[in-house]
Amino acid sequence: MRHARFRDPSGAVRHGEWHGDAVSFAGERYDLEEVDLLAPTEPSKVVCVGRNYVAHAEEHDADVPDRPLLFLKGPNTVAGHGDTVTLPAGKERVEWEAELGVVIGEQAKNVDADEAMEYVAGYTCVDDVSNRDDQRSESQWVRGKAFDGAAPIGPCVADPGHVADDATVRTIVNGEVEQEATIDQMVFDVPTLIEEITTYLTLEPGDVIATGTPEGVGPFEDGDHAEIEVEGVGTLEHGVTR
Amino acid sequence: MRHARFRDPSGAVRHGEWHGDAVSFAGERYDLEEVDLLAPTEPSKVVCVGRNYVAHAEEHDADVPDRPLLFLKGPNTVAGHGDTVTLPAGKERVEWEAELGVVIGEQAKNVDADEAMEYVAGYTCVDDVSNRDDQRSESQWVRGKAFDGAAPIGPCVADPGHVADDATVRTIVNGEVEQEATIDQMVFDVPTLIEEITTYLTLEPGDVIATGTPEGVGPFEDGDHAEIEVEGVGTLEHGVTR
Repeated sequence: MRHARFRDPSGAVRHGEWHGDAVSFAGERYDLEEVDLLAPTEPSKVVCVGRNYVAHAEEHDADVPDRPLLFLKGPNTVAGHGDTVTLPAGKERVEWEAELGVVIGEQAKNVDADEAMEYVAGYTCVDDVSNRDDQRSESQWVRGKAFDGAAPIGPCVADPGHVADDATVRTIVNGEVEQEATIDQMVFDVPTLIEEITTYLTLEPGDVIATGTPEGVGPFEDGDHAEIEVEGVGTLEHGVTR
Repeated sequence: MRHARFRDPSGAVRHGEWHGDAVSFAGERYDLEEVDLLAPTEPSKVVCVGRNYVAHAEEHDADVPDRPLLFLKGPNTVAGHGDTVTLPAGKERVEWEAELGVVIGEQAKNVDADEAMEYVAGYTCVDDVSNRDDQRSESQWVRGKAFDGAAPIGPCVADPGHVADDATVRTIVNGEVEQEATIDQMVFDVPTLIEEITTYLTLEPGDVIATGTPEGVGPFEDGDHAEIEVEGVGTLEHGVTR
């Protein structure tokens, strides 16, 4: 099953099922135009991983770290399928970063990698939108990574069985493929990330781990249309405005 | 007025008044032993400021940045007055950092410094507990700054009028004064911080800005008793265990 969160025509927020071109709840089916689709989860935090694909680290002239490079995005960063992200004003280079998102299902602390998948509710698509102007000049990536709307998430949360170990992650901007890689190329896999993160931080149900982006990042222009795909999940679409 | 949040003897969570040795709500007064005192706010994020006192930057052999150095702590870091922080396992050096905490009262985005105080609900005390072992070896301070319990906050939120422009911030560990400075020594003042942060991030009611620590940081030992004072607010006390 693939899970969606939406506001139905009466205004009620529903946790229903995602069908690609429709959603359903309690036996009622709605076309997407009838509902207000929301991000499929409400994370208390998004824990992001940097340089988790070798080819992306290389395109930034950076080494792959010897343990996961972690950084945080707050709830203010969350946007949903169909939303338009307003880029921070006056910045030259704000880039896409397609990522597999892991949605947590159970409160998790000090979890061993070999039990980590028991804490995963499912997978989603994340665009780790990155303001390079500030990211490159600040010590800690807050202006660069944690601005409002910097984490479009969706369109659904797919049960883990829908996503193969070698599923493809892809970015398409205005119809052009910009990023394409398989998730088995990640340096640190999902169980390893959960073990490492929960050594320090408790993950709450609904929290998201953004597992890092492959090579092919590039800058958004005003009016761009982004599609962030994870094979088995679906396609998160969002707009961009300055 | 000084505001406290607590669970009363019936188990109900109350937003009441802080009296130092007691709390009250709806005409009922309780000794502190009768209630379960909670952190006085439930931030969706804690936005922290690094190197905001010249003497502290110098004790770390670091420059004062030309704009605020920002980093994030998630809700998992919040602890309250009287709580005991469990330090991350196996770390040599986990340090105290007493700070003035600013609690946001209204949703705030693109706020000018000269109107920023209208968005402040009040002030509190924060201990920005810092795991130097990891902070010094990681690019982004997540293991170092955002581990569970890394932000004791409290004991109350004091209306802004209670805190003078030159109020003293102080750390006392096991009865010894370790940090002592006045908040007018901050490089970037509260209105400037709010303007800078809200240029990028929406602040929500209850969010906390931890405004940076003065010189005198030092490592906790197992069993230490910390007192974090902000003149006009009161004293946040917490324990430490390994």
